[in-house]
Amino acid sequence: MTIDVGVIGVGMIGQDHIRRLTHVLSGVRVAAVTDVDLDRARTVAADLPDSPTVHDSGEDLIADPRVDAVVVTSWGPTHEGYVLAAIAAGKQVFCEKPLATTEEACSRIVDAEVATGRRLVSVGFMRRYDDQYRAMKAVVTGGEIGSALVMHAAHRNPSVPDFFTSDMIINDSTVHDIDVARWMFDDEIAAVTVLKPRVSSKARDGFHDPLLVLLEMASGVIVDVEASVNAGFGYDIRGEVVCEDGTVELSEAAGAIVKGAGRFGGRVPTDWRERFVRAFDAELQAWIDAVAAGGTTGPSAWDGYAATVACETGLRALASGVREPVTMRERPDLYKES
Amino acid sequence: MTIDVGVIGVGMIGQDHIRRLTHVLSGVRVAAVTDVDLDRARTVAADLPDSPTVHDSGEDLIADPRVDAVVVTSWGPTHEGYVLAAIAAGKQVFCEKPLATTEEACSRIVDAEVATGRRLVSVGFMRRYDDQYRAMKAVVTGGEIGSALVMHAAHRNPSVPDFFTSDMIINDSTVHDIDVARWMFDDEIAAVTVLKPRVSSKARDGFHDPLLVLLEMASGVIVDVEASVNAGFGYDIRGEVVCEDGTVELSEAAGAIVKGAGRFGGRVPTDWRERFVRAFDAELQAWIDAVAAGGTTGPSAWDGYAATVACETGLRALASGVREPVTMRERPDLYKES
Amino acid sequence: MTIDVGVIGVGMIGQDHIRRLTHVLSGVRVAAVTDVDLDRARTVAADLPDSPTVHDSGEDLIADPRVDAVVVTSWGPTHEGYVLAAIAAGKQVFCEKPLATTEEACSRIVDAEVATGRRLVSVGFMRRYDDQYRAMKAVVTGGEIGSALVMHAAHRNPSVPDFFTSDMIINDSTVHDIDVARWMFDDEIAAVTVLKPRVSSKARDGFHDPLLVLLEMASGVIVDVEASVNAGFGYDIRGEVVCEDGTVELSEAAGAIVKGAGRFGGRVPTDWRERFVRAFDAELQAWIDAVAAGGTTGPSAWDGYAATVACETGLRALASGVREPVTMRERPDLYKES
Amino acid sequence: MTIDVGVIGVGMIGQDHIRRLTHVLSGVRVAAVTDVDLDRARTVAADLPDSPTVHDSGEDLIADPRVDAVVVTSWGPTHEGYVLAAIAAGKQVFCEKPLATTEEACSRIVDAEVATGRRLVSVGFMRRYDDQYRAMKAVVTGGEIGSALVMHAAHRNPSVPDFFTSDMIINDSTVHDIDVARWMFDDEIAAVTVLKPRVSSKARDGFHDPLLVLLEMASGVIVDVEASVNAGFGYDIRGEVVCEDGTVELSEAAGAIVKGAGRFGGRVPTDWRERFVRAFDAELQAWIDAVAAGGTTGPSAWDGYAATVACETGLRALASGVREPVTMRERPDLYKES
Repeated sequence: MTIDVGVIGVGMIGQDHIRRLTHVLSGVRVAAVTDVDLDRARTVAADLPDSPTVHDSGEDLIADPRVDAVVVTSWGPTHEGYVLAAIAAGKQVFCEKPLATTEEACSRIVDAEVATGRRLVSVGFMRRYDDQYRAMKAVVTGGEIGSALVMHAAHRNPSVPDFFTSDMIINDSTVHDIDVARWMFDDEIAAVTVLKPRVSSKARDGFHDPLLVLLEMASGVIVDVEASVNAGFGYDIRGEVVCEDGTVELSEAAGAIVKGAGRFGGRVPTDWRERFVRAFDAELQAWIDAVAAGGTTGPSAWDGYAATVACETGLRALASGVREPVTMRERPDLYKES
Repeated sequence: MTIDVGVIGVGMIGQDHIRRLTHVLSGVRVAAVTDVDLDRARTVAADLPDSPTVHDSGEDLIADPRVDAVVVTSWGPTHEGYVLAAIAAGKQVFCEKPLATTEEACSRIVDAEVATGRRLVSVGFMRRYDDQYRAMKAVVTGGEIGSALVMHAAHRNPSVPDFFTSDMIINDSTVHDIDVARWMFDDEIAAVTVLKPRVSSKARDGFHDPLLVLLEMASGVIVDVEASVNAGFGYDIRGEVVCEDGTVELSEAAGAIVKGAGRFGGRVPTDWRERFVRAFDAELQAWIDAVAAGGTTGPSAWDGYAATVACETGLRALASGVREPVTMRERPDLYKES
Repeated sequence: MTIDVGVIGVGMIGQDHIRRLTHVLSGVRVAAVTDVDLDRARTVAADLPDSPTVHDSGEDLIADPRVDAVVVTSWGPTHEGYVLAAIAAGKQVFCEKPLATTEEACSRIVDAEVATGRRLVSVGFMRRYDDQYRAMKAVVTGGEIGSALVMHAAHRNPSVPDFFTSDMIINDSTVHDIDVARWMFDDEIAAVTVLKPRVSSKARDGFHDPLLVLLEMASGVIVDVEASVNAGFGYDIRGEVVCEDGTVELSEAAGAIVKGAGRFGGRVPTDWRERFVRAFDAELQAWIDAVAAGGTTGPSAWDGYAATVACETGLRALASGVREPVTMRERPDLYKES
Repeated sequence: MTIDVGVIGVGMIGQDHIRRLTHVLSGVRVAAVTDVDLDRARTVAADLPDSPTVHDSGEDLIADPRVDAVVVTSWGPTHEGYVLAAIAAGKQVFCEKPLATTEEACSRIVDAEVATGRRLVSVGFMRRYDDQYRAMKAVVTGGEIGSALVMHAAHRNPSVPDFFTSDMIINDSTVHDIDVARWMFDDEIAAVTVLKPRVSSKARDGFHDPLLVLLEMASGVIVDVEASVNAGFGYDIRGEVVCEDGTVELSEAAGAIVKGAGRFGGRVPTDWRERFVRAFDAELQAWIDAVAAGGTTGPSAWDGYAATVACETGLRALASGVREPVTMRERPDLYKES
């Protein structure tokens, strides 16, 4: 069985997912596309083998009976509307992070999905599909080194565009570490503190970079996240979980180790695509397989809601300079087993 | 466009490729299967989503007009016949190694393909698609550390079945290192020597394990291959190319690094599937994409011929205890660019 | 020239230094010893080749004209008195950390030394002599990866005696990281925050272990120190400095890498002696060489003072749960170049 | 007790040992020196704290009653005479490798020492005192990964002086791997083969570099040694022992790991001094301590003899191109326990 997918939003990440759905993954076809820029949508569609329909709007695409399931890769503020429309149409929807840009919007999605009585929404936190993070989680949950106490993380981007702000370090970078923390420990975040170390000379005026974000989990585990977006040397994602009887950390990326000119060493990935290409592949293949089997998989609307709440709390903590508690709604039964 | 593939031979590796073609790769469908054991073929077919035809013989499968291209994963001695039949039918064929079990058989395949004037045969040397080997080759051919002088390799299997023989260390294990050496240096093997170190107490009587196989390339580069098939601790594939200005080696497999009980460290793969799962995926996806584009890609019939000749020379060297020169036919023009 | 050293305090660390001075280092002799337990002092002396004098008190030892220089390895609260006596006697003194147990006591030592107009005091922060820390500092100060922004550190002890308290995590463990931070960045600590992650089940009741200690340097660099004293698996000291253009971290300890039973990996040191044996050797040899040359070297009384002030601030932060600023006296000119 | 040592030969290695004996090690003093160039001997002596006597000849130095023990660091061909003189004088002698330059000369030393009935000779194979090699040997002899089958080694020098020849690759570089093999497996070398890979473009005309030296131990273990002396990028010593149930290898040298400009990695040592400085320290301290205790320790005259015989066999193998068996005299009882 082949799943016919409609893609809303054909910018950088949308085109990357279309390439993946078309040339890499199994059991799926891009049947329809749309974009706020219809010319761009037509250009992208023209290159695809299965001549996808170009719809005038996301709503039209969702309504198209040939579209089995929907991928939302449009601009963040538009996610809520498309996800709600997909839920209303009873169609499975994979939404790139963020699920929505405000706690309220996420909450409305949760309400809508809960009202249908079944899971229709999957959110694109691809690190859960990364081999290294999965190996780390297997060790943590396997119990061989005892219960977790602390996690150290670093999220280093080589550079960011001019429009990037300190707030976006929380919303666009740290959000991944927020989801990792919730998933790694199967726990919620109870409070967030944001410290401002010495500012990199490469950061623009008024920009706080790096940040040191401290997440307190409900269990008491503390996760410290160093988030840098002008690291220059590469895209470097680090993580170490400290447990009672040992630690587990992400290894450096495999590859060739070169010795020359007095040094030995390996490559640091250039960007998130190089680092996480296989996680994206695995994430979407898992979703397609689940859709083909009549359901969904992966991070839920609840995970999307919780991440957005934690980010909003992080922004408050960035502004206030002090520890900010996280306040969340009750977790609906629909999300009580994962 | 979807390629309809027929698979001849549904043993362990055949079933693994069928799983891959069905559930992992893009643009392909298993349309037909057959096996020397027809009941097994029917059982395998029954589990597949697209209800493939079960043919009584490989020849019938190859002749089936709905079969666009052929995958040969049957017992080695049967490869020649199926590959020749596919060539005769003008169909692209992916043949697991070995291309054929004797120099003469490989030569007949080369003759048949050359007679058609175009490449129809691809041989399953999957290491060429492994990320680490590719990174290593990029360094070697990039010239940053000068010309290659020596290569060290190790091929360690945790264990082998009772029917395994010392000859099979050459034919089934070292054959991969033979292909890697030819590919890494874009060169032919000029001579083979096989040394017999102290025998592992885990080897059966009369079995020489490990072996130390020395490959002399035409350029003078020497490749030493430690081949062990009772290594016990894991499936461990090592490689290091020593060049004039530096070296490049395969890193240990990535994953989680655990500290506990006085040690730090990571996992050694359990078997070839774990180590090379992605190389197999990439190899077959590349082949499918090339078939869809009207051609082929990957190791050629010439590569299959050369590997078999080197293995036969290796067997002579194992028996004689001395250096044995490799004698090959002239390389046909069809294979002169790769 | 051979330096005749008197050692005050022959407990565990004192005996280790006596072994070092007697059997490992060059140009030095243990000429006198004393201890609060005179029997123990006599027993230790009896085993030494040069028949050191056993003095009834530290003051007597310091006054002994045959004693060229003094090593203080007694109980912390007694340090002040012995160091002041050595200063009064005009003798070089190497004092194990802490220099003294209170800010006031350290300040009195600083005053006494300043009054002599020359440096007579060296404090035993041996990490400054560790090859890995020195390699790290060379990179940081070399400027090849830009200015420092953040430092991550971990101090993991396998276990601690029953009398150990959370306060001692600050005073006995983190004090080393405090000194490293000051030395690494040639800067003072401006504020300390102590966070209390989930408590290890191996910690006794009422014990906060691990702690997450945040040091803010005057420059704005933030140093986070995970301090665990029930880590169980080994003695694990980690450090990574994050700079504007790259990072530098301590490598895992060298040694043999073993592959077996599905794992590859190396050894984690058992205790501080294994990890820092060479740093202790180098530290004391450097001090002996400096004494022989008529001066001193290594961490100064000011460094001892600053570490004690930071520790006291850390204790306040541990109690208060909030960020505590560090208040220090003016740095005397004597310590203005290091 | 302080050992008064006389040093014969104050070239590069002699001066390095004098620095070590004077400024690094414990319980020793350089009491006398000499050199074929007496002016050089006088210059070196003038810089030393204990005003050593400058003797006109090695024989005079050995005869000096104030000299407790002798260190021979003169030109190789002179070793035999000095070692025999020290034996005749009944003085302990530490001789840098080679013990002597011919099998016959070594044999005469063995005879002379055997005639005294006790060990007086120690040979400077410092790798036996290297922490990494010792950790490796501890694993091999500990039995945790079974019996040894194969060893891989590499000896890479960044460059060599113009007078260096291919023979010297055997005599000056590979000799260390020869001693390591004998020591690691407590076994003798039964045969040597020398292969000549493609020649580095950095080697002078007529120079075979690198070499691939194959040592067959009496037990059947094969040791392959890649010996390169124009490696350019650093001084790189590698070793891996392959056992029945696992492997053990030297780790890369510890230090700081730097990330920057798209790479992570560490330092390769610049030269043998950087790599083995501590092995030299440990070797000589162990010898001094043994001398102080009335005996000796470390590689024996028999080890020196065996290494020279293996090197001579290696030279024959380099010339003949084929496997050359090693023929040795009977091992005297004096050397039967080590």
